[in-house]
Formats: sequence, C-alpha cells, structure tokens
Amino acid sequence: MEHMYLDYNATTPAAPEVVEEMAPYQRDRFGNPSSGHWYGRQTKAAVARGRDQVASLLGCSPAEIVFTGGGSEANNHAVKGPAWADRGRGDHIITSSVEHPAIVNPCRWLEGQGFRVTWLPVDGYGMVDPGGVEDAITDKTILVTIMHANNEVGTIQPVAAIGEIARERGVPFHTDAAQSVGKIPVRVDELKVDLLTVAAHKLYGPKGVGALYVREGTVLESLIHGAGHENGRRAGTENVAGIAGLGRACELAAVSPEERMRDLARLRDEFQQMLEDQVGEVLLNGHPEERLPNTLNVSFPGINAAGLLDRIPEICASTGSACHHGSQTLSPVLEAMGIGAERGFGAVRFSIGRWTSREELERAAQLIGERLR
Amino acid sequence: MEHMYLDYNATTPAAPEVVEEMAPYQRDRFGNPSSGHWYGRQTKAAVARGRDQVASLLGCSPAEIVFTGGGSEANNHAVKGPAWADRGRGDHIITSSVEHPAIVNPCRWLEGQGFRVTWLPVDGYGMVDPGGVEDAITDKTILVTIMHANNEVGTIQPVAAIGEIARERGVPFHTDAAQSVGKIPVRVDELKVDLLTVAAHKLYGPKGVGALYVREGTVLESLIHGAGHENGRRAGTENVAGIAGLGRACELAAVSPEERMRDLARLRDEFQQMLEDQVGEVLLNGHPEERLPNTLNVSFPGINAAGLLDRIPEICASTGSACHHGSQTLSPVLEAMGIGAERGFGAVRFSIGRWTSREELERAAQLIGERLR
Repeated sequence: MEHMYLDYNATTPAAPEVVEEMAPYQRDRFGNPSSGHWYGRQTKAAVARGRDQVASLLGCSPAEIVFTGGGSEANNHAVKGPAWADRGRGDHIITSSVEHPAIVNPCRWLEGQGFRVTWLPVDGYGMVDPGGVEDAITDKTILVTIMHANNEVGTIQPVAAIGEIARERGVPFHTDAAQSVGKIPVRVDELKVDLLTVAAHKLYGPKGVGALYVREGTVLESLIHGAGHENGRRAGTENVAGIAGLGRACELAAVSPEERMRDLARLRDEFQQMLEDQVGEVLLNGHPEERLPNTLNVSFPGINAAGLLDRIPEICASTGSACHHGSQTLSPVLEAMGIGAERGFGAVRFSIGRWTSREELERAAQLIGERLR
Repeated sequence: MEHMYLDYNATTPAAPEVVEEMAPYQRDRFGNPSSGHWYGRQTKAAVARGRDQVASLLGCSPAEIVFTGGGSEANNHAVKGPAWADRGRGDHIITSSVEHPAIVNPCRWLEGQGFRVTWLPVDGYGMVDPGGVEDAITDKTILVTIMHANNEVGTIQPVAAIGEIARERGVPFHTDAAQSVGKIPVRVDELKVDLLTVAAHKLYGPKGVGALYVREGTVLESLIHGAGHENGRRAGTENVAGIAGLGRACELAAVSPEERMRDLARLRDEFQQMLEDQVGEVLLNGHPEERLPNTLNVSFPGINAAGLLDRIPEICASTGSACHHGSQTLSPVLEAMGIGAERGFGAVRFSIGRWTSREELERAAQLIGERLR
C-alpha cells in the first residue's frame, strides 16, 4: 500500500542534507563540547556553527540562541522562566485560547502556583485581536505569549502588532514559532518578540532538539539548572548532532523562501479544488489568506473525519478531534474558533511539504471522493 | 598527531550498533509517534521497544521509564518534581557535597524558593555515610538524592544502604546513575531507589537523550508540561532515533557486564602501574575498591595537571580544576573530599572504555613520563 504523507505539521522527515550534516557527530566526532581537548574542540565548533545558522535565519545574534531538547522545552522555558524571574514584579500572564498544549499547560500549572492568566479569545478564523492584548495588560503583567502560526488551522497571528503593544508597555513577549519557522519568514526584529520557540523536527530537522531565542536583556530563570552550558541558561551536554542538524535545516530554510511558499500555497489550493471537484463544497477552517502556505484544514459536511481516515489508511493526515477511551472530543482550537461539534468532527488537517507531489494529492482527493460519493 | 581518548566519563562515542539502530529513524521512519496513521505507528513501536530495553537493563517495568532530553533534565525533574508535588508535606531535601552540578544547582535554586537542603559531607574517599542520611531525615524531608557513582573520582556510594533507610522513613530516594549505568550493575530494586537518572551518552548512546526511572506510586510534578507524552509526565515529541539508540545501548550494556568490568578494571590498574613506573608514586583520588572500573583519578605531586595536559595534547583527559577568567578553581568534589589545592591541582581524571587499548595507555604513560622526568 502506497502511503501519502499529508501531515507535515505533525512532523517532517529530516532533509537528506540534514542527515548528512549530522552523521560525523554521531560516531567519529563524539567529544563533549565542554572538554578542553582535541575531541571537545571539534564538537564545540559544531555547536557554534549550528548557533550561527539558527541566528542567521532568525536575524539575531548567536548569543541570543539557547539550544533545548525540543519545542516543548523551549515553550516551558519561555513561560516559566519569566514567571520565576519576575515574580516580585508581577503575577499576570496573557496568552490565547488557541495555543499549543506546551503553552497551555505551563500556563495552567502557573495558575495553580498563584499566577493569573488571561486567555484571550479568537475570532472565527482563529485570529487574536491585538486590541485584546492591549486591554489585558496591567502593571502586573510579566509575559505575553501568543503563537506565530496555529498548528491545526494554520492561521498566522498579528504577532508584530502585538509585539509593538507589548514593547510599548514594557512587557516581555514570546511567540511559539514551532509551526512557522521554515514555512514563512520569521525574523525576531520584524516580529518584535523577546522570546521565540523553534522546533527542529517541524522544519526538516531532527526530533529531540529545538531552540529558544532570548533577546539580549530579557530576564528569565533557567528551566534546567546545572553546569554552565548555553551561557548558564540551559544545562546539559549539548546534543551536538541534533544541533548540527537544526543548524543545517535553518540554512536550507533560508534558501528562496518566497518561491517555496508560493509553490506550496498553489499546490495546497489546487488540492482544495481537487477535493471540491470530488465531493462538492468543503468548509475551510482557519484564515483564508493569513495562513501557513502548507496547511489546509477543511470540514466535510456531515462526515466523521476520524472514521473517514480510518477507512482510507493510505492517507496520513490529522483530524480535528481526539479519541479518549472511545469517546471523541473536539480540538480546543476549533472550539475556541466557535466551530461546533458537527463541523469540528468533520475536520481534516492536510499539511503538505517538500516532498508532496501533485500526483499524490490527486490520488488522495480521488480516494476521498470514492468514499464520500 | 594520534589522540588518545581517555575521557569516557565526559562522554562516550556511540557504539556502531547504536548508530545502526538509529539510522532508519533519522530519515525514512520519521512519523510522529503521536500520529494515529501508518507513519506514526512505526515510530510509536520504536519508542516502545526502546522503553522495554531500558527497563530491562534497570530491572523495572517499561511504564516506569520516562524519556528525557538528557541526564541534566532527568536530574532536574527528579529534584524539582517531588519538591513541587510535595510542598504541602515538607520542604527539606537531603543531598551530598559531591553531586553533579545538575543536582547541586536545582537544589540551590530550590533553596532560593524557600526549601531547606542538607548537604552531607563525604570522607576522604568521597563516600557518604548512610548514618548521616538517617540523622538528617526529618518529618519535613521530601527527597533524598545521592549519586550512584561520582563522575570525577569514580567512588561508588552505598546507595542500597541509603535506600533502605529512606524507605523505612517513607522518603522518596533518587540516585543520579548517569556515570554508573553501563559501567556497573544498576538494578532499581537492589539499589532500593524510587527515582534514577540515565544519560545515554555516558553508555555508548547518543547525546541529547536520557531517562528517568520513576517507581510506580512515586509522586512528582512534571518539569516540561504540555501534551500527554510519556504518560503525561514529560511533554514533547519523542526523540525517536535517540530513544532507539539509548535502548540499543542498554541492550549492549547487559551483555556480560561482569567480564567487561573485570577487564576494564585490570587495564585501569595496569595503567596506574605504568604511570608509577614512569614517574614514581601517584596519589589515588577516590575509593581504592568501591570505584567505577574505568576511572583512575590520580594526583601527580607538585605538578599542575592542567599545564601538564596542555603540553601533551595527544592525551585527552580531564583535570580536577576549572579555569575561569584565567584563574584556576579546585573542583568542589575534591574540595569536599578534603583534598587541598596543591594535590587537587595536580589531579588528572583518566577514564577508559570500550575502545581503549593497552598500547594507547602505554604510550600515554610514556609521554607523561617524558614530561615529568
């Protein structure tokens, strides 16, 4: 059976260039970057190069990059770090109702520790209103954290506008850019962010490594204390191969991004047309324009999407619901967008990427058509 | 120049078998283990197999293994997790004065958060007295954390005796086994521990992955909150390749461990003799018998070890001091053992492993002899 991978927002295959870059650090160049001797110097240089590559993509200084064990760790660090460091100054955090669980759950945990969290609503496209951030900021606000692009529907938030407001009010601003880095331009100064999360495995890098951008002067406590790695901000022997891979992935992401965006968006929109040719109208979830170029979240009216995908195992995609103990629950993102259960349970997220072909999408649309006609 | 790697306690090269095990998950089998489709099922199975392999080495249930981004993360989780979960019950932690920074600094940070920490002394061999643990436990004690084997001098702590005491008093007991797993038998029931740290890159596995053993029923808060990975105990897309590699490394570590221990200890002791044949008496730091079989920490009287190694770049080993802004500071471990500056600054840690040859050690001893004679 030929499987069609249409789930690039869940994870991406590592690029061949990335795998090649990592190879020497998996066996021959194995030294601990903290070691002062020959073996250590080799890998210290590799970590420095990876840091330069990530910084170059984001438009920041290498010293502002902290390597982590992944996007979830970076998000936890970005939320808890300012909270612990700044508790004397305030106890209020502003976030949105469509964030990834790695933002939602650190915020909930901090609520249990006595912090107050404002959960901003979104409109029907999943978009946060910057005015809502402005209204929510108080003199006790120590962090605003709003994602760059939503993982489920692809909606791109007005991050620069929010950053402008946060900066005027002197509040640190974090964005979870796990889904946007490598898909659309992500430059920390244009976005006006102080903290930004990167997850390597979402941009053709390896799993188990990520980065947190920390603007110079941003005060945050460590999440993982220990030896002095990462300028004392994140302890633990560096994942040298992973960092080399993330660095290379960032370098690749910088190559003709506009062209790749345009091609992906065209392919995605063609796919939507193929689906409509097969089954009639589908309902688009997420913003029609302000959206990741690779993401198509559509509801098939009157259809249970989980059941549909179960019956077409060739199509590897995600649904807008989770199954727990045999009962379906609607995704909190679709719920926050005001999408009801019927439409929500009919939602499929197709997310395409570097190796998605037109033929694959035609075949996928055809299989869905055969099932639904 | 031929470099002799005598720094296996800093990090180990990944075993060829480990690299081979990881390869398919770096490119072809790339699915997110959380995905319900074909790609996800492949990697979900790989994570489950890795979990079985780690559990088998430690003698625990697979459900008691939490994969982490490394040993430092596991240590932070083991220290802060019980502290946060049990704050209502108590605020007292017992540890030793020879722990790794990834234990020391989380404990210090908790002191800043209002916890009290007892820093137990060690004897001249770097050994903790179990009686000291017994005396220090109060009804406010929520955690005892004592390392299994010391990274610098190799001294093996009386963990089972301490575990017996902690268990009688109903206090959770953690051991940082980053340096012992793969070098000596580590079985959670024999050691009577509730929490235990594993770092893959210390046992011929990859960097950037580790594990925390959590005995069933042990109460601890998460360090990284988010989605429900690792049974809700550690959020983040699994480092599938890393987990597969750690699993394979654990499987390899289970093959004739007694024979490997005996061979390594013999080679190490021969090396000590070679050194003494070259330069006269050297002073052994650490316990003569209760010691990792691969570790030889010796002081060359009247010699500055950092300067010595600088002049013999072929020898890749560690010293008992760190250099900060041009001034040398003695390692806190040697200091806690009552080893003064002169002897401490003369200390070199040689740590050998799977690919260390007798010829290599002979050459190293000869080079040191030539420098010191």
